[in-house]
Amino acid sequence: MEYRAYRAIIMTITDVIDNYRADLERVEGQIQAGLDSKAVLVRKMGGYILQGGGKRIRPLLLMISANLTGNPGPDAVLLAATVEFIHTASLLHDDVVDEAELRRGQSSANSVWGNAATILVGDYLYSKALHQSVQTGNHRAVDILSRTTTAMSEGEILQLLKSGDHSTTEEEYLEIIERKTAILMSSACRLAAVVGNMPPDKEEALAGYGMDLGLAFQLLDDALDYTAEEAKLGKSLGKDLEEGKLTLPLIHLLGVCTDDEADKVKSILSVDSLLKEDLDCILGLMHDNGSIRYAVDRAKSLIERAKARLDVFPPSPHKDALIAVADFVVEREM
Amino acid sequence: MEYRAYRAIIMTITDVIDNYRADLERVEGQIQAGLDSKAVLVRKMGGYILQGGGKRIRPLLLMISANLTGNPGPDAVLLAATVEFIHTASLLHDDVVDEAELRRGQSSANSVWGNAATILVGDYLYSKALHQSVQTGNHRAVDILSRTTTAMSEGEILQLLKSGDHSTTEEEYLEIIERKTAILMSSACRLAAVVGNMPPDKEEALAGYGMDLGLAFQLLDDALDYTAEEAKLGKSLGKDLEEGKLTLPLIHLLGVCTDDEADKVKSILSVDSLLKEDLDCILGLMHDNGSIRYAVDRAKSLIERAKARLDVFPPSPHKDALIAVADFVVEREM
Repeated sequence: MEYRAYRAIIMTITDVIDNYRADLERVEGQIQAGLDSKAVLVRKMGGYILQGGGKRIRPLLLMISANLTGNPGPDAVLLAATVEFIHTASLLHDDVVDEAELRRGQSSANSVWGNAATILVGDYLYSKALHQSVQTGNHRAVDILSRTTTAMSEGEILQLLKSGDHSTTEEEYLEIIERKTAILMSSACRLAAVVGNMPPDKEEALAGYGMDLGLAFQLLDDALDYTAEEAKLGKSLGKDLEEGKLTLPLIHLLGVCTDDEADKVKSILSVDSLLKEDLDCILGLMHDNGSIRYAVDRAKSLIERAKARLDVFPPSPHKDALIAVADFVVEREM
Repeated sequence: MEYRAYRAIIMTITDVIDNYRADLERVEGQIQAGLDSKAVLVRKMGGYILQGGGKRIRPLLLMISANLTGNPGPDAVLLAATVEFIHTASLLHDDVVDEAELRRGQSSANSVWGNAATILVGDYLYSKALHQSVQTGNHRAVDILSRTTTAMSEGEILQLLKSGDHSTTEEEYLEIIERKTAILMSSACRLAAVVGNMPPDKEEALAGYGMDLGLAFQLLDDALDYTAEEAKLGKSLGKDLEEGKLTLPLIHLLGVCTDDEADKVKSILSVDSLLKEDLDCILGLMHDNGSIRYAVDRAKSLIERAKARLDVFPPSPHKDALIAVADFVVEREM
C-alpha cells in the first residue's frame, strides 16, 4: 500500500515534467546562452553546477505558473533562466561559506576549482541574472528580483550569525529559511503573475503558494539531514548539526526535553566534530520527543496551505500541475 | 620646485572635494540609509569598510558629472551611493579571493570577520546596490549597472585565469583592468549623463573620460606596487608579484629584456614566497629597462586623452573639477 502510493506520486511529478518538457527545454537553451561568457571558466563551472543533477524546480514553478497566467512566452523563459542563475550563484557561495565538499553527491565546485574561482563565478551569475531580467524591460520583474537577492543574502547572514546559537527560536529559524530559500520560489511564481498581468489577488496567491512551498521544502530538507542516507541526499547525516546549524528538529527538541537532556545536547553541540554515538544520542532524543515528526507535520500543513492558496484560480491542468509539485515536495524522501 | 608643484596639486583636489562637500554628504546619508539592514553584521562590516579611508572617488566623479550635466538631484545621489556599494562589494570579495590581510593599511574585513561573513556581506551590497538603482525607475541606469557588475566579475575571473601566466600580453592586461576597475568609473560618469538626459556625444564623452581615468588609475596603482612604501600604500611592496599578478611593468620587462634575464625573472616568479634579493633583482631590471616609467607614461597619456574627451563641454567650474580629478589621479603618489 505504501509502495503503491509512492509509485503513484513519482508518476505524478514525472507527468508534470513531461507536460512542461518543451518549456523546460526553452529554459535550458536560455541558460546555455547566458553562460556564453568570454571567460571559459564561467562556461565550465557554470555548466558543471548547472548540469549537476539540479531538479530545475524553480524554472518549473515559473513555467507552470506562466502557463496558468496565460503568458509562457520569451519573457517567462528568460526569467526562468534568471531564477535558476540566482539559485546556482547562491549554491556556489554557500559551498564556499560552508566549506562544503559535496553537492548533490558530486564534488562541490569549490573543492574542484577552489574558493576564488567559485566566489567569482557566483558573482558573475548573480550579475548576469539581474542583467538578463533587465532585458525584459519589465521594471517590476527587475524590482522583484533585486529585492529577492537582497533578502536572500540577508537570510544567509542571519543564518551565519545564528550559527551555534542554542537559543535560536522557531520564529528566527522560519525567518532565515523564508529568506534563504522560500523567497526565491515565491518570486519565481510571482514573476509569472507579473508577466501574465494578473490582478493583485492572483499575484499574491501565486507568491503565497511559492512561499509556503519553499518553506516546506527547506523544512523537509533540514529534517532529512537527520533521516536520509548519505547516498540518497548527497551529503552526510547530521551535517547541519556538525556545522552548528540549528534547524527545526533540534529547536523543537531543545524546547521540549528535560534540562538534563538539554545540557547533554548542548555539550554535544559545543564540540567540533561529532562522534557516531553523539549523533545517535541526539537522534534517539529526537525520536522520543517526536521532533522530526513535528518538523515534517509543520511542512505538511504548509503544503496544504500552499495548495489552498490556488483556490482563486479555476480548475485547469496547470493548477493541477502546481498541486502535484506541492505534493511531490512533501513526499519526495519521506 | 617639486614640493611646490605637489602642494598645488593637493590643494586642487582639496578644493574639488570642498566644492562638492554638500553633494558628498548627501551621498554619505544615502550610504548610511542603504546599510540599514536587519542584519547587524551588514551595518558593522559595511560601515567598517565603507569608512575605512576610501576616497569616494566614484561618487565624486558621479556628482561632479551630474553637476556638469545639470541634474545633481536625488537620483544622482542614489546612484552615487549605488556605485560606492558596488565598489565596496568588489573589494570585500577581492580580499577573500586574494586572501588579503590588509586593506588601506587596516586589517581587511576577511581577516576580522572571516571569509564566510565577508562573502555574504559582499553579496548583500551587490544586491542592495542593484535594488537601489531600480528605485530610480530609470531603466537605462539599471541596465548600465547590471552590465557593469557582469563585466567586473568577468574581469576578476580573467585575472584569476591569467594569474602566474608569463605569456600575458599588454592587451590582455588592459582588458582585465578595463573590466575590473575602469568600467565602474566609466559607468559612474555615464550614469550622470543618463540622469541629465545628455545627447549621445556628451554621454560617450563622459563615459570615455571615466574609462581612461579608470585605466590610468589602475595602471598607476599596479606600478605603485613596485615603488611605494608599505605605510603609504597600505599593502606590501611586490605583493602583485608574489600573487602571480602580471601587471604592466612586468609584462613590459619580459617583453624587452634578454632571454637570460627573462629566464631569471620567470624562475623567481615560480617560487611561492619572494625573497628581498629576488624583489631587488626584478626592481633593478625594471629600472634598467624603464619598465615602471613605461607604465607611468602609458597612464599619463590616458589622462591626457581623458581630459581631451571633455572638449565637447563648454568651459565651466564642473569641467575644471573633472580635469583636476584627472590630474590628481596621475600625480597622487608619483
